[in-house]
Amino acid sequence: MTYTAQVKIMPLKELLDPQGKAVLGGLKNLGLGSVSDVRIGKHIDLSVEASNPEEALEIAREAARKLLANQVMEQFEVSILS
Amino acid sequence: MTYTAQVKIMPLKELLDPQGKAVLGGLKNLGLGSVSDVRIGKHIDLSVEASNPEEALEIAREAARKLLANQVMEQFEVSILS
Repeated sequence: MTYTAQVKIMPLKELLDPQGKAVLGGLKNLGLGSVSDVRIGKHIDLSVEASNPEEALEIAREAARKLLANQVMEQFEVSILS
Repeated sequence: MTYTAQVKIMPLKELLDPQGKAVLGGLKNLGLGSVSDVRIGKHIDLSVEASNPEEALEIAREAARKLLANQVMEQFEVSILS
């Protein structure tokens, strides 16, 4: 069966996010001053062939660890869409 | 009050995602052959000052429409973290 795994990858809270700061400036220039912080990460959808959701989750976690996320600078969360 | 709005921006289904195809090839080389498709988008967390969640959602939607998403090539979803 094919499961859809969602991987959310965000820069670690302890690190500066210069891309987010640039977007925050852009939003203020557009008059959206009520936005006080922006952090930008990646969202990756994986189609995973597996026999059950637990196996699909494990495969998606392995993909995130081995290739998708840089754990020096980023944290990731994996979930399976039901 | 400060709300956290999550904006998920993905390439439209009708469009090729060359970055996703490259990552799919990388996963296969790493032995993760059970992943059959990869699509890569952005995940943006906004801190929004608003008096209620509906107002925060509206502000985040406006930010996505005006700056964050390119609606020619991307679709977006906005949600408020409770």
